[in-house]
Amino acid sequence: MYVILVYDIGERRVVKMLKLCREYLNWIQNSVFEGEITEVKLKELISRAKKFMKKEEDSLIIFKSREERWLEKEIIGQEKNDLDIFI
Amino acid sequence: MYVILVYDIGERRVVKMLKLCREYLNWIQNSVFEGEITEVKLKELISRAKKFMKKEEDSLIIFKSREERWLEKEIIGQEKNDLDIFI
Repeated sequence: MYVILVYDIGERRVVKMLKLCREYLNWIQNSVFEGEITEVKLKELISRAKKFMKKEEDSLIIFKSREERWLEKEIIGQEKNDLDIFI
Repeated sequence: MYVILVYDIGERRVVKMLKLCREYLNWIQNSVFEGEITEVKLKELISRAKKFMKKEEDSLIIFKSREERWLEKEIIGQEKNDLDIFI
């Protein structure tokens, strides 16, 4: 399954979330990740994220598509990739 | 067509981008929008955004899907909506 993941999270938890998501998906922009992932691995990611997320403040949205080809991506401006940042 | 739009933009241009996107789409999280839009309206949005975006710093990513039902959305934590904020 192909997913797009976006988070909006308190500053203190950003690095933790970034590191977690990078274990599973490809970073494409600020707080946006995408990639192929299994249902099991996605559940694991979500359960690990929930452990440090603050329910009242933070959010994590996941768009799931059975097929990547059902989505077309258009990028305007800078395209980030994992080489841009070293955490 | 159904789209997900995410932007990563310099602080000085955030409000401009937020206002622009809200003219066309529904705000769902920090810098994330979604909604039904025509190809023509999307081109209009992009061309208006390009006018104030800084190519070297800013980015706008648009995921397009012909059918909304091809995407399943899961939200963990807070769900934002337009009533949360008045700009």
